[in-house]
Amino acid sequence: MEFSSKLLEKAVNEMAQLPGIGKRTALRLVLHLLKQPKEQTGFLAQSLLTMREEIRFCKSCHNISDVAICEICSNHNRNHKIVCVVEDVRDVMAIENTGQFRGIYHVLGGKISPIDGVGPSQLNITSLVEKVKSGDVFEIIFALSSTMEGDTTNFYIYKQIKDCEIITSSIARGISVGDELEYADEVTLGRSILNRIPFENSFKNN
Amino acid sequence: MEFSSKLLEKAVNEMAQLPGIGKRTALRLVLHLLKQPKEQTGFLAQSLLTMREEIRFCKSCHNISDVAICEICSNHNRNHKIVCVVEDVRDVMAIENTGQFRGIYHVLGGKISPIDGVGPSQLNITSLVEKVKSGDVFEIIFALSSTMEGDTTNFYIYKQIKDCEIITSSIARGISVGDELEYADEVTLGRSILNRIPFENSFKNN
Repeated sequence: MEFSSKLLEKAVNEMAQLPGIGKRTALRLVLHLLKQPKEQTGFLAQSLLTMREEIRFCKSCHNISDVAICEICSNHNRNHKIVCVVEDVRDVMAIENTGQFRGIYHVLGGKISPIDGVGPSQLNITSLVEKVKSGDVFEIIFALSSTMEGDTTNFYIYKQIKDCEIITSSIARGISVGDELEYADEVTLGRSILNRIPFENSFKNN
Repeated sequence: MEFSSKLLEKAVNEMAQLPGIGKRTALRLVLHLLKQPKEQTGFLAQSLLTMREEIRFCKSCHNISDVAICEICSNHNRNHKIVCVVEDVRDVMAIENTGQFRGIYHVLGGKISPIDGVGPSQLNITSLVEKVKSGDVFEIIFALSSTMEGDTTNFYIYKQIKDCEIITSSIARGISVGDELEYADEVTLGRSILNRIPFENSFKNN
């Protein structure tokens, strides 16, 4: 792609570093900014800079937070003995949106993935194991995505805490509500039969 | 969407102002920046700010340029008597990529679109008409997209210059190279038959 301006080229190249944004999309976004008032670009740039510089992570659960201990961890109405282990901040938001969970979270910050060069030491695993060993935890819920990396991470953590006297559980895998059985993959459908639940439970919490 | 941090929320909201970027995508992009070194966010923000502040438009063709007269307009090897009228900078880049055009451009900066509140006065039409009336132009090629707005804009300009002694032409509409006839829409196929070309011309410039 040949650009008529170095400034434009630089902005497009920086924009195209973002995941899922190719050069064509980046050009479209940058040209959009050029058509808008200068303030919009200023606000965007400033909010990104401020966020990157000043954002903090909760010391307890590693969720993104503006304060040292996040709102969820400092809420005494929540059950601090039930810890839901998730991959990142988006998972916390997704589970919070359901309104079904009143425990606290532990954000790992990723999954063990040798291909991407992510080992256990880069994730917030040590602090989770310490939390469990301190005896404050009653149940750990694994809520990582059900992929090779997710399963590996689950198992790595499980091995380190399996001797502690706690309950470990995993979120249920099965057919999504509203999905047609015939389009479900075999592994999901198979698991949903093996891990079937009492019928009375199936219409709770709708 | 509930955010655990105001800084995060602000960055996501600013990002989601960009066209085609929803809140979920914005969150994914912002969380990606958080995982990268701080410099990356700095480079992105700075390149956007610098571009928005310092970018200029060619005084002759209104293309984006770092100098007062762009490279294309200041190139004496190009034919300054043939002017290709396009909507925006991306169209200049697309036509330049073909390597088939050695004239100069005139970038309108949009199309007449009453629905979007864009009238002729917001586009670079006056300077084009002046250029034609000054007698420096031999041929005008209309290369706007073939939509209601594009056709309206073409016709608006055509009405103002039709008494000048110049050639006006439009880029050819027809079946794309490599396309199957059976999938072509009727208007395109109909026009490609009406505006058929001598067979010898059909394998030129491949």
